[in-house]
Amino acid sequence: MDDSANILAMAESPLGMNAIAGDDKLSFEGVLIGLIDRWLDPAIRNVPVVICGMAGARQGWLEAPYCEVPVAPRDLASGAVSPTVADPRVAVSILPGLCQRPKGVGEISGDADVMRGEETQLVGFMNQNPDFAGWVCLPGTHSKWARVADGKITAFRTYMSGEVFALLSRQSILRHSVGDDWDDAAFAGAVRSAKTQPGSFLHQLFTVRAAGLVALNSADVPSGVAVLSGSVIGLEIADILDRLQDGETIALVGAGKLASLYQAALAVHGQTALAMDGGAITLAGLSQAYQTLSHASQRI
Amino acid sequence: MDDSANILAMAESPLGMNAIAGDDKLSFEGVLIGLIDRWLDPAIRNVPVVICGMAGARQGWLEAPYCEVPVAPRDLASGAVSPTVADPRVAVSILPGLCQRPKGVGEISGDADVMRGEETQLVGFMNQNPDFAGWVCLPGTHSKWARVADGKITAFRTYMSGEVFALLSRQSILRHSVGDDWDDAAFAGAVRSAKTQPGSFLHQLFTVRAAGLVALNSADVPSGVAVLSGSVIGLEIADILDRLQDGETIALVGAGKLASLYQAALAVHGQTALAMDGGAITLAGLSQAYQTLSHASQRI
Repeated sequence: MDDSANILAMAESPLGMNAIAGDDKLSFEGVLIGLIDRWLDPAIRNVPVVICGMAGARQGWLEAPYCEVPVAPRDLASGAVSPTVADPRVAVSILPGLCQRPKGVGEISGDADVMRGEETQLVGFMNQNPDFAGWVCLPGTHSKWARVADGKITAFRTYMSGEVFALLSRQSILRHSVGDDWDDAAFAGAVRSAKTQPGSFLHQLFTVRAAGLVALNSADVPSGVAVLSGSVIGLEIADILDRLQDGETIALVGAGKLASLYQAALAVHGQTALAMDGGAITLAGLSQAYQTLSHASQRI
Repeated sequence: MDDSANILAMAESPLGMNAIAGDDKLSFEGVLIGLIDRWLDPAIRNVPVVICGMAGARQGWLEAPYCEVPVAPRDLASGAVSPTVADPRVAVSILPGLCQRPKGVGEISGDADVMRGEETQLVGFMNQNPDFAGWVCLPGTHSKWARVADGKITAFRTYMSGEVFALLSRQSILRHSVGDDWDDAAFAGAVRSAKTQPGSFLHQLFTVRAAGLVALNSADVPSGVAVLSGSVIGLEIADILDRLQDGETIALVGAGKLASLYQAALAVHGQTALAMDGGAITLAGLSQAYQTLSHASQRI
């Protein structure tokens, strides 16, 4: 990026933390330089590289210890760590993840929880929506919901919805009942049931299989994938709606089919969500971290 | 068995429906005769063989169409089917499974559901406990809970608890956090949370991973396998307790570690369960089906 956070060039690699840490022939610096080498001028030293995500995990490049909620964006940037690099052309900063430590019985938002990478998206979101108060959803394999108020992330909750859906639809007995047909009404019905009968989740799952076995008419069988998806996303959303306070709103960071499903599930309960593109939000967060880091180093 | 249901000999095979139906070299009759050939006298024809379970499924030996709840034990026996067999020494009866068809909005016990095999255990249980009124639990990969009243099975609910636990503990990200250490207090805490916050299930799962990452002292990390087990079994039990009416009791069919966990989870909520051995109950159910079938054929 240039100094005004305009993107000058982009590159990406499929190599994540586990692939790099698990291969003797790969190093984090090597993978980074392999991606950006062509952009680096041998005459210019210490080009700032700002990194978020699993590179800062204990098994990553260099551990950037978690910041604990409640946290403001500038606190996060000040927790960045700098691994020693062999290449003099770059100066690397790895941003910390975010954690939440149990606060004891009764403090329902205080469950043990962690994120790495999503906190930078949240910073980008907050930068673009400075007056936002409510819950920001980052759907995915492990969906993150963060409560934002007064310019701080005050609490967050991770839901294993994406991973549970994948395991159930691909590896459980339900894999035989999950076809490609989709049915909005079946999805909405499952979302509604998840809120009125959240304790029935493990039973509702089995109806995906049983519906096809007991139907007297195959046209009566609701779409298995829609019911499964509605049950899982519906349970996650029901839990957040129970925590939504007056005056708080919901924002959804993401695009494509998954974000649409979350919007549809929220709409079942009469909720509309502000939706934003995840890629732009991440760049905004990294850019803001860079601004904070460079101002801090100028003060030194 | 002899005519008084005393066991004379036992044999078992690891071959289930999928293994037999999926192998061109195997047949249901061949597997059966291979197991019991040595007990059969060439001079005696039509020895009754009573079968329950997946042999009666559509993909099994011969489909025994589901009976629908509410159902009395004699109704189940009368739904038995007899496959044609080449061996004149045996006369085979396959008992039907049980189904429940959706009854429409508001009828919460009427979700689509099926069982094959467990209904015969339920018949055995009812035979030995003729005055029982309440819910009978058959824990397992797919736990079955059946409501019994006035000598009938009136409704039932399947929970995918065992399969969900297996997938999460072996194949999800939680596999790294589920060790061998066990902690009764962590199990009980998760069981309690599942009842007070059933909607938080997909979030509670992730605390199994997060607890180890955020702990300042490793001694503070609750046993992952205990929390996971308590979350899953606790959600199932919370759903049944919500449906338990005054005067109804709970019975648990099964033995060993799994049944003990269900008893411990029920005890967290102050419930005691009548516990019975599953093998004996199955034999009692098959024996009663045989009695019903042989009386019926004598009347003909």
